[in-house]
Amino acid sequence: MSEAIQYIKVPKGLENVLVDKTAISVSDPEGYLIYRGYSIQDIAENSFFEETAYLILYGKLPNEEELSDFISKLKREREVPYEIYEIFEKLKGKYLTPIDLQKIGVSLLAAYDETWYTQTKEELYIKAIKIISKLATITANSYRIVYKNLKPIEPRYDLNHSENFLYLLFGRDPDPFYSKILDVSLILYMDHDFNASTFTTRVTASTLTDIYSSITSALAALKGPLHGGANERATEMLLKIKDEKEAEEYILNALKRKEKIMGFGHRVYKRVDPRVPIAKKLFLKLLQRKPKLENMYKIMLKFEEVMWRERQIPPNIDFWIGPLYYGIGLDIPLYTPLFALGRVVGWIAHYIEQLQDNRIMRPKAEYVGPLNLKFPYQRRLLDKI
Amino acid sequence: MSEAIQYIKVPKGLENVLVDKTAISVSDPEGYLIYRGYSIQDIAENSFFEETAYLILYGKLPNEEELSDFISKLKREREVPYEIYEIFEKLKGKYLTPIDLQKIGVSLLAAYDETWYTQTKEELYIKAIKIISKLATITANSYRIVYKNLKPIEPRYDLNHSENFLYLLFGRDPDPFYSKILDVSLILYMDHDFNASTFTTRVTASTLTDIYSSITSALAALKGPLHGGANERATEMLLKIKDEKEAEEYILNALKRKEKIMGFGHRVYKRVDPRVPIAKKLFLKLLQRKPKLENMYKIMLKFEEVMWRERQIPPNIDFWIGPLYYGIGLDIPLYTPLFALGRVVGWIAHYIEQLQDNRIMRPKAEYVGPLNLKFPYQRRLLDKI
Repeated sequence: MSEAIQYIKVPKGLENVLVDKTAISVSDPEGYLIYRGYSIQDIAENSFFEETAYLILYGKLPNEEELSDFISKLKREREVPYEIYEIFEKLKGKYLTPIDLQKIGVSLLAAYDETWYTQTKEELYIKAIKIISKLATITANSYRIVYKNLKPIEPRYDLNHSENFLYLLFGRDPDPFYSKILDVSLILYMDHDFNASTFTTRVTASTLTDIYSSITSALAALKGPLHGGANERATEMLLKIKDEKEAEEYILNALKRKEKIMGFGHRVYKRVDPRVPIAKKLFLKLLQRKPKLENMYKIMLKFEEVMWRERQIPPNIDFWIGPLYYGIGLDIPLYTPLFALGRVVGWIAHYIEQLQDNRIMRPKAEYVGPLNLKFPYQRRLLDKI
Repeated sequence: MSEAIQYIKVPKGLENVLVDKTAISVSDPEGYLIYRGYSIQDIAENSFFEETAYLILYGKLPNEEELSDFISKLKREREVPYEIYEIFEKLKGKYLTPIDLQKIGVSLLAAYDETWYTQTKEELYIKAIKIISKLATITANSYRIVYKNLKPIEPRYDLNHSENFLYLLFGRDPDPFYSKILDVSLILYMDHDFNASTFTTRVTASTLTDIYSSITSALAALKGPLHGGANERATEMLLKIKDEKEAEEYILNALKRKEKIMGFGHRVYKRVDPRVPIAKKLFLKLLQRKPKLENMYKIMLKFEEVMWRERQIPPNIDFWIGPLYYGIGLDIPLYTPLFALGRVVGWIAHYIEQLQDNRIMRPKAEYVGPLNLKFPYQRRLLDKI
């Protein structure tokens, strides 16, 4: 490559590379996570989905009027065009996961937005509310249709975001404690600086693509088993294990074979993922209601103990959220889509932030292939131009 | 942030940042573009879509047997499930661009692949052929259905990739010279190291997401007007201009207002985009057949002249490909989707390369927001956990 240009070689996976600025959230190896200045502990204990979403999107806590306006706008956007459900009807029995249905659903939402391409801040906030609200409806109703062979349900307007989601999914009044668990989990998942799906949002936003396309690309990234897929894999793993003894054997065998243990390890947190104690506290409360989860809880503690003893690797949020979802009766294929229902708020905030001071993301690669090969002329007859 | 960690700050847009290695293609500011060792000039003059696709995917030119096997496999994969067409029927009259239909189409293709999640090299090559071939059919037939209110057409097996695409689009035998123009354009678009959509493919692939999801995310990025959208915008701009005098006025006014001129400037090429002379040569040949394009040609030369005189900015590939497509009778909304029909080969090669030595892409951002804010306790009644 040209000698004149100074290329900058960075670590693989862009580890510890500061690629841009953000004022949305920051995580730190010391074990903290901040949304717009507030610690995740503070938020999880004092806030709820709608308010935290407002904080992430607008950069400040809403006053009472702003909050009630935001909540009613979110409610008004719950409905999804019936034609989208008709398309989901056609996808029964096919090889699509619920997150694929979310991807298709978000792409289809653009079809009903006459101004899908607009990118002023004001218009993006209107689309933000549309996407956050309708994605929840799409997630629940596409699951009903495609996986449960049930009819879609009309959203209810007397319920909050999390309650309404559970109502749509199960078709009955949601348990307030279960809704609260879901609500906190969505808050914990809401943003995490430049994780892979958020970075995808920012890369696609940097081409000035529309917000629906950018969110679709983020869902595509989240689907990966190294990213959003981890909560599903961790739960599947835990459900295969009988007791603490088997847990220890399982881990030691996996480590011997140099296999990754799902739900452990994090690019940022080396000692503690600050979201874990919050999820753990919720799991303990859930145990009081569902003592049958005791064995799973013991197995999980054993996992933490052995992984720390053997490798000094702490659990991450996915290790605890998966079992929480399991405990409140959610099917495993919904765990990554639920991650998305939280994270979509962050994606949108990052999309908006990226556009404020944009430059297209166009890195270089170190070329390690051949150079100066000559095409074998006349080796066969070709249509010449 | 933690003091112990060395963070690496890089230029915005990752300009000149080497984020990984590649053996697929390399572009250089000096004005060359190499695919797997061969120069783009050499390839454009001596090869055709199928052969170049093989080269990009497998890293070497095929022998006769390998080529004929590859061609027949591509042909066998041209058909698209009829149910996908039924879904496109439902999208008539909605606000979707043809590239949105490609995005939805690729997401839907996964629904018909029982092993959508497999990632061995061998299986990925099978999926590669499926996606490259079916994406062309989807592009033409979704355009017929949604934009032209026509029925989808069955692919033909006596035609090559480019000929078959034009046949599907227009429903009649393709003009061989027009097919050749399309074919060369697909080659010129096929790969370009870590451009934004390819980088998106690699970011999403790094989460180990499936190939269909990764290609969907690339399409989302390509849709952006700073990326794939440029060939459409450049052509629209040229069509608004009456003559050379108006061209000069247009540019001077735009530069005065600090507006971007679509089709000019490139992150890599500062003096010449090596694909431009190839496209220009094609345009000159086309002029002999279509003398009516003479005025457009003069306007384009004037653009080149004034932009170089005023800003020393050369045209890029999109400036010349758009008018070529216009010249062979293609509707403007198809230009970005056609870019995708070429680039999809590169995306897939990069997806496969990324998985060979993967590390999840998870950069950091410099946090510029507030820290240590305290949640205003008791300011209102909240459901405590």
